[in-house]
Formats: sequence, C-alpha cells, structure tokens
Amino acid sequence: MRDVAVIGVGMNKWGELWEKSLRDIFVEAALLAIEDAGIDHIDSMYVGCMTSGLFVGQEHLGSLMADYLNVTPIPATRIESACASGGVALRQGFIEVASGINDIVLVSGVEKMTDVGGGEATYALSTAADQEYEDYQGVTFPGLYAMMANRHMHDHGTTREQLAQVAVKNHQHGSMNPLAQYPFKVTVEAVLNSVLVADPLRILDCSPITDGAAAAILCPGDLAKKLTTKPVVQIIGSGQATDTIALHARKDLTWLGATAKASEMAYKMAGVGPDDVDLVEVHDCFTIAEICVIEALGLVERGQGGKATESGLTALGGKIPVNTSGGLKSKGHPVGATGVAQVVEMVEQLRGEAGERQVKGAKLGLTQNMGGTGGSTAVHIFKRM
Amino acid sequence: MRDVAVIGVGMNKWGELWEKSLRDIFVEAALLAIEDAGIDHIDSMYVGCMTSGLFVGQEHLGSLMADYLNVTPIPATRIESACASGGVALRQGFIEVASGINDIVLVSGVEKMTDVGGGEATYALSTAADQEYEDYQGVTFPGLYAMMANRHMHDHGTTREQLAQVAVKNHQHGSMNPLAQYPFKVTVEAVLNSVLVADPLRILDCSPITDGAAAAILCPGDLAKKLTTKPVVQIIGSGQATDTIALHARKDLTWLGATAKASEMAYKMAGVGPDDVDLVEVHDCFTIAEICVIEALGLVERGQGGKATESGLTALGGKIPVNTSGGLKSKGHPVGATGVAQVVEMVEQLRGEAGERQVKGAKLGLTQNMGGTGGSTAVHIFKRM
Repeated sequence: MRDVAVIGVGMNKWGELWEKSLRDIFVEAALLAIEDAGIDHIDSMYVGCMTSGLFVGQEHLGSLMADYLNVTPIPATRIESACASGGVALRQGFIEVASGINDIVLVSGVEKMTDVGGGEATYALSTAADQEYEDYQGVTFPGLYAMMANRHMHDHGTTREQLAQVAVKNHQHGSMNPLAQYPFKVTVEAVLNSVLVADPLRILDCSPITDGAAAAILCPGDLAKKLTTKPVVQIIGSGQATDTIALHARKDLTWLGATAKASEMAYKMAGVGPDDVDLVEVHDCFTIAEICVIEALGLVERGQGGKATESGLTALGGKIPVNTSGGLKSKGHPVGATGVAQVVEMVEQLRGEAGERQVKGAKLGLTQNMGGTGGSTAVHIFKRM
Repeated sequence: MRDVAVIGVGMNKWGELWEKSLRDIFVEAALLAIEDAGIDHIDSMYVGCMTSGLFVGQEHLGSLMADYLNVTPIPATRIESACASGGVALRQGFIEVASGINDIVLVSGVEKMTDVGGGEATYALSTAADQEYEDYQGVTFPGLYAMMANRHMHDHGTTREQLAQVAVKNHQHGSMNPLAQYPFKVTVEAVLNSVLVADPLRILDCSPITDGAAAAILCPGDLAKKLTTKPVVQIIGSGQATDTIALHARKDLTWLGATAKASEMAYKMAGVGPDDVDLVEVHDCFTIAEICVIEALGLVERGQGGKATESGLTALGGKIPVNTSGGLKSKGHPVGATGVAQVVEMVEQLRGEAGERQVKGAKLGLTQNMGGTGGSTAVHIFKRM
C-alpha cells in the first residue's frame, strides 16, 4: 500500500443556502479544494451524501457531480453511511490511492437539508436509525441521544452543566471560524434556558440543519511533494467499524463500540496512541455525543468526558483541543459533508493556517465521524510530514 | 495491486417478495454466497443499493446489514450509483482486496421495490436522472430510453422487431433460470402486441419492478486456491466511468460513452479485447439498452446491435451469448442488486455450473452495469484460472 497525502481542501460558507442547489454547493467546495491543491486534473472522485433522495429527490450523485464539475468520464462514486458518509468516503479515497489504481482522487461530502420542512427533515434523518425497531416506535435522534445522556448522567455522574459546556466550548471555537453556520458564542445559562427538545437535551445541545459541502484532494505521498509547495499532510491511519444500528441492542448505551474499534484500527496503522494526538475533530451531533466519543477514542478515561470538558482539557489551549472548527454544533452539520469538513479543519491546523483557532505546534491530529447513534464510524489520523 | 478472485456467489429467488423485508433478502443472499465460498468469516463488506430511503425509508445500510448479518464491528459501506450501484460496489470490493487492506470482502446488492405503489416507484427511479432538467420537465425512464430507441431506428435502421428480439432471447434464457422473476418465454408477436409504454417501447420491452439481492465473496488470488476447491474465477479487469447525467446533453443519444470508456479501462487492465470474450451479462433495462451496450462494448459494429440480435449472434449457442441469466428483462431488476447478480451468473458460467444455460467451454466473460441512461457504468472482466 502506498502512502497517502492530502494536498488540497476546501469548503463553502455553511448555512441555509436557499439560493443554491445541491450541485452548486458541491461544485463550489470541489473547486476550492482543486485550487488549494494547485492541480489541473483529477483521476477519480467520491461523493459522501446521506439522503439526497429524501432531501431533494436526486440520487446518482457520482454521475451528476462529475458532470457538473465537468470531469466526466472519470469514475465517480457516491458513498452513504448516514452522518458518517463523508468520513467513509474519505476512507474509500484513501484505499483507492493506497491501492495504486489511481493517483489524484477528490473526496467530497455534500448535503442540502433546508429545501424541506422540519418534519420532513426529521423523517429523512430518522432513516439513519433502525426503521422497523426504532423509528416505527416513534423515537427520533434527539430522543435516542437523550437516552444516552440520561444513562451517562446516571452511570457516571455527568451533570447537565457539563453537557452545556460542550456547546459553550464549540461555539467559542466556531466564533473564530468564518465559514461556520452559527459563529456566535453561547453561555452555560443560555444552553440551560434554551427550548427543551428531548429531556435532558435542549436546542443548544443539538447540531443544526445545514446546507453545505466540503472537499479534499488525495494523492500518493511521493507525488504530493512534487505537486504542492505547502506543508504535506499524510493520512497515516484509517479505521472504519460498525455497531448495532439500534441503540437498544447495545450492552452499554454510552459506549460507542464502533468508535473504539475504528480508532483502534487507525492507531495501529499509524503506530501512535491517544497520547500522541495534538488535536481532534469529532462528531458532536449532540453535546452528549462529544463526551461519549472522547471516551471511546481513549483521550479521557471512561465516564470522565463530562469532567474533562468542564476542566478545560478539550478547549483551545487545553491539553487536547476538541473541535477547534466549532464542531457540528457551531459550524453546522450538513450530514454527508461533515466527515470531509473535519479534514478541512485538520489540514489547515496541521499546515499552521488556522489563524486565531490555531493549535500551536500541531503535528498530529485525528478525525472521528459517525452515523446514527454510532452504528458506523470512520476514524483517520493525519500527520504533518 | 494484488490479484482478486471471486470464491463465492449467491442470490435468492427474485420477485415480489412482500413477506420479506430489505434486510431479510440481503441476509439470504449474503449467507448463500458465504456458504458457496465455504468461509468462516469476512473482513469487510459493501452494499450496493440505489434508493432504499425512497423505497422503504431506510438509509445507513452498512450498519444495518452488518448488524443483521451478525458481523459487526467489521467495516461496511453502502454504495449508490443508481442502477449501477451493484457494479460499482463490486469495483470498490475489487480495489479494497487489490490494495491489501483487507482479505475477504463481501460485495452485495439489494433493493426492495414493491413496498410502494407504481407512481412512487416511478418517482424513486426518476431520481437517477437529472431532476432539475429531466424529471421536472416530466420525462421518466421509459421516455428517455424511448428517445434512444427512436434515434437508433432513425440513424441505423434498427427495426421494431429487432427490439422485440432482445426480449424474446432474454426470456428464452431466463426460462432456464429458476431464480428469475419471470422465467417464461415470449414471442415477437407478444412483445409487439403488449401495452404501449413510451413509443416505440412496450411493456415487454421493459425490465420489471423487483425485490431481490445478490452477493459475492472476493479474496486475493493466492488465498483463493487455499480457501476453495471449486474452479477459481479471477477479476482480471475493472473499469468505471461517467457520462452526462442528462440524456439531452450528449452529442449522440445512442452512444453510451461511459460504457465505452469503462470497457476500454477493463480491457486494458485485463490485456484482452472484445474478441476474447466468451459471454457477457449486460444492462438490458429496456430492449434498446442491450442493443446500445453491445455496440459500446465493441462486441458488434456501431449501429449493428439490432441486426446482430436478429441474426442470433447474441443468443445461447451464438458467437457471443448475451445475458444467459435472462438479463434484467426476465430475471428481474432490483436496481441496486443487478450488478452483483451479473457476477453470480458469470461465476456459475465460468465454473461450468450453469446447467442448461451453460455456455460450453466458457473461460472469459464480461459484466456491464449502468445507472440512469448510462451516466455511470461499471465493467468487469472475469477469467477462469
């Protein structure tokens, strides 16, 4: 297997982009990544997208996006793994470059979520859960994550305030990200007084509905040095894993088994461990999610995610900054794009281009992207060479 | 890149399977393939599926199917490329095994299409076309392929009877396939007198709406000889390509550019040409499609697909048998499963297990699977070692 580098990244301004279509926002992000890489062609491409069929009535995104990016007849493949579609698309691009079958591969993620009403969006997102045994019984994602939160509070003494502190931290980070959907700060009080969605989760515990896209350009490590004058960032570890799709089928509601397994695979491939990581971008679709994820990644002890957040360990300036981009919470969560946007932040950080969000001296970082309540997860480890 | 073999295949009986769910039919086919391969584990899996979100309200098929096959936490990825989802899933499995990242990979395709009414099914399928510039104007797939048929008749003198002969041949083949949805024979007269759908295409020119699944087990070539006592079939060529998603954007409505390009890639990798191929399974979603495909694959001269069919060249016993399985026309067309079912037929033929459908002495075969009106295509070449 060949070394794989990321030589270009791009994402558009995220938000409610009513004047733009699914194909428009994909092309915007793809061109930014191509420009950043300084390349004149691509050999192949992947499009991560969860459910454009339900959101905008369009499937066949490989053909559509290759067409509108004007790169036919290259191979173009759409990947779906619910909210992990982007992270899994990255893994497919990594495998393709590593295999030697193609050299320059564009990996992208896109979702257009605001062309439907709230009820339709909730239905579309619910298709990431077990339809027969979860959705048909009436539970949607805020309810599922609320059960995880209640159980974490019960088992580990996690407090309502600690959950809020995840949102406060990520909005603090996101306030420095000009591409974020909600680049404003929030306080613990604001979170605690916001509208109740599914007890104990309130609206400011939840990531928003977002239109957006992100893209990255991969190539073999030795080619990267010829193609770009920017610092070369390599993907040194890749892991992907699954868990039961239904939350109720797990022995422990707060343990993200697929995240633990995928990170174990990625750490092993990279030859590093949690202590070697300078920063991480993780899947904070709800505040409780970030707490469970940092435990499953081995960054903090099991059950200590809430306390670690409260202590400032995961804030910019702390020992292991989590979600310097603002995370899903502040940056937004166009579900298929999220996993690739994590790569955008990671590459900018490892190149030293993150401006006031910069983690000083960052050399090694990890991204974690999951679908549903963690039924699928992709983890990647990046190193500045 | 490592050599890649197919050591197991399986598919269930296709049809209107109202008593079975999407997950049921996937598990049936996957277990048949695993049993055929005689293996005790898989390392990774792919699920090709076009639009389970619109057909049954379920996405996140990687997690769901790994869960119900009881193989979590292995990586599991859903691939979507409209009706080429199965063929593109096969290519992803091929790349993964070739790369060395995993050894034993299950590739599957599945679709459950009969849980919705006809109008909803037509809508779901229309998402493979360009929604903004085709569907919103009122054209659906029978209409698009009817335009291709009219143009082929105009440009090349193809006759209405020659179109019918594709259906007659494929039903003749399918009548010998016990897993086919419609294993009966039809006559030219029956096709010509069947209900008009979109002039000149009649109902017996169209592939049906089908529930079904198919699966194949891939592994490295050297491992195949240790794992199975059956004849080893290797994938010696893989190609994938795209074309404009909208039919109207092409210079020639009857030329399938992505099929030509994907086959060029596959022939080159395999080091063979059209004359070396003993049999092919192609994407006959409509009778005109098979005629255009055999031209784009270089099996017959451009414009001669109709005449070649009429002459018996493509029938069992002819020079180059096409769709011995019955094709999409008789076997059925659960859209995401079709590309993998082609592999089932190919492996059985190359092993000499195809019974009364057997192509005598078959050693080299090709599969071609396309999405939409040919906006995406996967081509693979198989050889009995």
